[in-house]
Amino acid sequence: MGKVKVGVAGYGVIGQRLADGVALQGDMELVGVADVAPTLAVKALKERGMPYAFYNAQPDNKVSLEKAGIRLSGTFEKLVRECDVILDATSAGVGAKNRELYAKLGKKAIFQGGEKNSVADVFFHGYANYEQGLDKQFLKLTSCNTTGLIRAVDCLDRAYGIERVAITIVRRVADPGDYHRGLTNALQMDKAPSHQAVDLMTIMPHIHATGILVHTPVTHGHIITVVATPRKKISRSGAAECFRAHDRIRVVTIDEGFIGNASFFRYARDLGNPRGDMYEIGLWEDSIVETGDSIMFAINIPQESVTIPETIDGVRASMGMEKDRLKAVGATNSFLGMGKWK
Amino acid sequence: MGKVKVGVAGYGVIGQRLADGVALQGDMELVGVADVAPTLAVKALKERGMPYAFYNAQPDNKVSLEKAGIRLSGTFEKLVRECDVILDATSAGVGAKNRELYAKLGKKAIFQGGEKNSVADVFFHGYANYEQGLDKQFLKLTSCNTTGLIRAVDCLDRAYGIERVAITIVRRVADPGDYHRGLTNALQMDKAPSHQAVDLMTIMPHIHATGILVHTPVTHGHIITVVATPRKKISRSGAAECFRAHDRIRVVTIDEGFIGNASFFRYARDLGNPRGDMYEIGLWEDSIVETGDSIMFAINIPQESVTIPETIDGVRASMGMEKDRLKAVGATNSFLGMGKWK
Amino acid sequence: MGKVKVGVAGYGVIGQRLADGVALQGDMELVGVADVAPTLAVKALKERGMPYAFYNAQPDNKVSLEKAGIRLSGTFEKLVRECDVILDATSAGVGAKNRELYAKLGKKAIFQGGEKNSVADVFFHGYANYEQGLDKQFLKLTSCNTTGLIRAVDCLDRAYGIERVAITIVRRVADPGDYHRGLTNALQMDKAPSHQAVDLMTIMPHIHATGILVHTPVTHGHIITVVATPRKKISRSGAAECFRAHDRIRVVTIDEGFIGNASFFRYARDLGNPRGDMYEIGLWEDSIVETGDSIMFAINIPQESVTIPETIDGVRASMGMEKDRLKAVGATNSFLGMGKWK
Amino acid sequence: MGKVKVGVAGYGVIGQRLADGVALQGDMELVGVADVAPTLAVKALKERGMPYAFYNAQPDNKVSLEKAGIRLSGTFEKLVRECDVILDATSAGVGAKNRELYAKLGKKAIFQGGEKNSVADVFFHGYANYEQGLDKQFLKLTSCNTTGLIRAVDCLDRAYGIERVAITIVRRVADPGDYHRGLTNALQMDKAPSHQAVDLMTIMPHIHATGILVHTPVTHGHIITVVATPRKKISRSGAAECFRAHDRIRVVTIDEGFIGNASFFRYARDLGNPRGDMYEIGLWEDSIVETGDSIMFAINIPQESVTIPETIDGVRASMGMEKDRLKAVGATNSFLGMGKWK
Repeated sequence: MGKVKVGVAGYGVIGQRLADGVALQGDMELVGVADVAPTLAVKALKERGMPYAFYNAQPDNKVSLEKAGIRLSGTFEKLVRECDVILDATSAGVGAKNRELYAKLGKKAIFQGGEKNSVADVFFHGYANYEQGLDKQFLKLTSCNTTGLIRAVDCLDRAYGIERVAITIVRRVADPGDYHRGLTNALQMDKAPSHQAVDLMTIMPHIHATGILVHTPVTHGHIITVVATPRKKISRSGAAECFRAHDRIRVVTIDEGFIGNASFFRYARDLGNPRGDMYEIGLWEDSIVETGDSIMFAINIPQESVTIPETIDGVRASMGMEKDRLKAVGATNSFLGMGKWK
Repeated sequence: MGKVKVGVAGYGVIGQRLADGVALQGDMELVGVADVAPTLAVKALKERGMPYAFYNAQPDNKVSLEKAGIRLSGTFEKLVRECDVILDATSAGVGAKNRELYAKLGKKAIFQGGEKNSVADVFFHGYANYEQGLDKQFLKLTSCNTTGLIRAVDCLDRAYGIERVAITIVRRVADPGDYHRGLTNALQMDKAPSHQAVDLMTIMPHIHATGILVHTPVTHGHIITVVATPRKKISRSGAAECFRAHDRIRVVTIDEGFIGNASFFRYARDLGNPRGDMYEIGLWEDSIVETGDSIMFAINIPQESVTIPETIDGVRASMGMEKDRLKAVGATNSFLGMGKWK
Repeated sequence: MGKVKVGVAGYGVIGQRLADGVALQGDMELVGVADVAPTLAVKALKERGMPYAFYNAQPDNKVSLEKAGIRLSGTFEKLVRECDVILDATSAGVGAKNRELYAKLGKKAIFQGGEKNSVADVFFHGYANYEQGLDKQFLKLTSCNTTGLIRAVDCLDRAYGIERVAITIVRRVADPGDYHRGLTNALQMDKAPSHQAVDLMTIMPHIHATGILVHTPVTHGHIITVVATPRKKISRSGAAECFRAHDRIRVVTIDEGFIGNASFFRYARDLGNPRGDMYEIGLWEDSIVETGDSIMFAINIPQESVTIPETIDGVRASMGMEKDRLKAVGATNSFLGMGKWK
Repeated sequence: MGKVKVGVAGYGVIGQRLADGVALQGDMELVGVADVAPTLAVKALKERGMPYAFYNAQPDNKVSLEKAGIRLSGTFEKLVRECDVILDATSAGVGAKNRELYAKLGKKAIFQGGEKNSVADVFFHGYANYEQGLDKQFLKLTSCNTTGLIRAVDCLDRAYGIERVAITIVRRVADPGDYHRGLTNALQMDKAPSHQAVDLMTIMPHIHATGILVHTPVTHGHIITVVATPRKKISRSGAAECFRAHDRIRVVTIDEGFIGNASFFRYARDLGNPRGDMYEIGLWEDSIVETGDSIMFAINIPQESVTIPETIDGVRASMGMEKDRLKAVGATNSFLGMGKWK
């Protein structure tokens, strides 16, 4: 079997990172990316010398794209025709429309968390329910918070059996460079239970989850505190050991310098990671405490990049590239260089 | 028995509010306030026409205070001599030094949360352990977060019996007008367990408490989520009813406009409350969720003013003005106008 | 002549403060306020015991208002009929619609800065062009930044003659308690010249003004730096003296504690001013520097309350209560207690 | 002449970037970097596989560095001995102490803006006073704001002759990942004139400069507005053309997506620049306005990386690698890839 041909629809915050991630996979070929206008992200692609082929998803904008010096490789339909699977990272709602084209052309697609669940056959997470995504035409990824949260909960669940989780999401409200949304000197509440808890139950129906979400005026990563109630008691050290063995969880301490969410961002920049991105969630070892039989801990979610690995897992599942869950996520991790810090 | 004579040491964020609160108590007399320099707060007192007598706690600053037009009523020692009890709201560490003067003159004193526990005979909360404060010479109040948290936990505990709480504190990092501390675009972690959970166990030793604290770059009120595990199951409506009956808890909903911590501040300003202060904690009815036998909910802590009622309860306890817990807190509430919104 | 009867349309951030300000004027009577729904501001009015009569501007909401316990004094049209002049502080665009009602009933009205200039006969500022507002039916106030800026520029202009100003507006992006707008960890640019500079030229056509506006993620007051070029040189001390004589300008220094915009807010709270409001703009004496023949300085604009005095001046002008500019603004200042700090 | 051997003292925010920048210069060799402890930055160097040799500047920390897995190449003195020139980016004050070692060993050194001017023979800027740095032993770079500001002013000055500038600095208060300093919901004033204006006059004594600085709670780049008064009038288009020809100034517009300071950061991340850095200052073409004979405009200063090119220019000057100013800065620009976007 040759390389799987992958296209990316929507070259925004997530789409750019999906393209970079796919380009690193030895068993995939990035055919190209598509967007509708000469945004800053598209202009940056041009300034970089067009390492990825660009397809125009909005025929009306052909002139303005060409005027901005963007070399066009064809229409969005052309991109879809040339691919085996499309990673759809368009704005919420657009994916549902694009789905018609994918269905018409018999292509597979993986949607991001902003779309409704009904857009896909399976609501997917690489570690938690990989097998359900096998050979399906349409998958939908969990959102950034849920993706990271499930990594940690699934990790404990497979080792100890989890019955219940109660989460508090301290949510970053915007990404660096966002002006269209924001919050100034306020903490904002969502009605409980938070959708992330509800989503977790869709992926892991054997666990009861609930939680409260508080928006905060920062841009560098969500922090979630988790109270997890297991079938058998988990000790602090047992939990830490479990997390440390996971290739998508980076266990850190405040003492070594990971003082808050912005520390991960700075560290990733200092690592030379493109865009200062980090694929792993962070987990503070010195946040782990016991409460009755339950365990409580805090994780950090790098919202811009955390879903990239699980989306690539989705390519492996939907294309049937690998039947075994651990081999599949292992391949993704290996190509992305995850776990090599240990 | 005549009115109890009360002085306030330290005319900063807390001291000003203590003075205002004492001045409203029909059975207390505010003798005066003391501070060390012509700060903005002291200049505001002058611009208001010196409604409270001012005593100079730093003889070296007599000239600069008089130059700023502050009318001096004497030294700090003079204030202490004229009072039955001093509310000490000086900077952390100064109270321990002042304690020597209080002891020498045989005066009672109530310290704020910044001092070490050893400064006082009893670590005090008006609702949770009023009786332990009766007739004691030195009390220390719980800090702002702990004071508000205990209100809610004690409220459930007396109705249902609470075994365990696990809290997440989303902490405001500075007060409006602070420049000496601050945080910019970051969430900052404290090592777990948070001191507020530890402090709660000191006041309520029959409860196990733990928790995680996250600092956030805002100024208008902490938000705490609480997972409380009771002896017998608490329903959402049972908890809400319980909270609604409490005179220091304001039960609100997102739908009616209490969208976050800043809503309480705006509402208090619109009420015409001095300084836009609110003595009650807020509790979001639409944050209450069940998780197993436990109940989870979110509260808002107005950090500048929340300890005022419990400190005044402390005056009633230490001076033996009232032996009965509920009559004591009821008197404080009545003079402060609490609960009248219902 | 009896007291002038004043109504307030829109009981939001500005409307509430207009009502409070009018209620303090010995020669005006506040007939009542109108709004469309039981917002938090309206609920606060109810919790305060309805000190102002409330008129319902949205008949469809009668039930929800009554359900919220708001006592209704009639319709919006009833309020307008009972008044001589309406202060229209409704959302941008609503005032233009309300204008039809005012015109039909032959009432005067004063609009806030959010409306288009065409809504009014005169674009008005109490100090700069009072005479042009005399006996006019419809006035429109300058916006908060422009109102405060003109106070300072007009002050210098009358003493020295100003030819040109170049301003940099460091704009607060939201009010305390706002969630519908905000900015997180970014400075946002507007295209130059800023509308405030353009507006200044409309009020003071003999001055050339231009400038650049930068939005910043804070809530407590805009800061504007002004480079003012006079006909004859202004010295630092000359400018300071000029500003100090103005009853709507509070000259302060960093050394005495006015470290930034939040200091004014804290000071006003400590003064016991309702809502922590301040009617004066702040002017930092230690920001005044000379550059060639020009003078440069920084002012602080308390955005929620700064337009209240000039709007009340507008009542005096449009109703012809006082022909003399200085007597008119003096009456407003006296009733508002401005200048008494000196 | 062989490659100039360069060392970097202090591997923090600036030091890391200096090392990266030097490593790109074809005519320089980066001998290594030195720091005192296993900070996050040093741990990131290790996780990257030690691309730069690391020297231990604090013998007492040898154990903790080795325990953290850092491979040590020797002491700080060893590094200095092996180099021709040291780029000293240690904490403010440490450089003055290190200077003794540099002097003893007869090495050249370039200090950053945090040190006092007395540490160096010349206060240096690559474009404005390159010639004065030629063959000097000790140079001190201008600080980040001043470096960027002088680029723009020098650019106009060489074309038109500038007499006077009045600046407003809207300063970012912390870097991404800083917790030790911060500001929350406040704008903070410095006393005027700002030190950046004073520093500009030291570098360009023929220009009078003054200005006001306002700290703002953001992390992504300062914004400075400049009112520049020339000897002969500058038109908007003339200024824009002048700026566009400069290889260290990136002329942008709001319309194309550069909405504020965070846009540059996002764009640099999207370009794939290491750490999301940008060496150029930004200049908004749609901020340029005329005021009398003066021109006003706004620039963006990427505080973490802006001084890197001028520091490398300093190596060229102090080592006498190139006598000609334009050839020197041209070489730096070429190795750094600056100006290639045009």
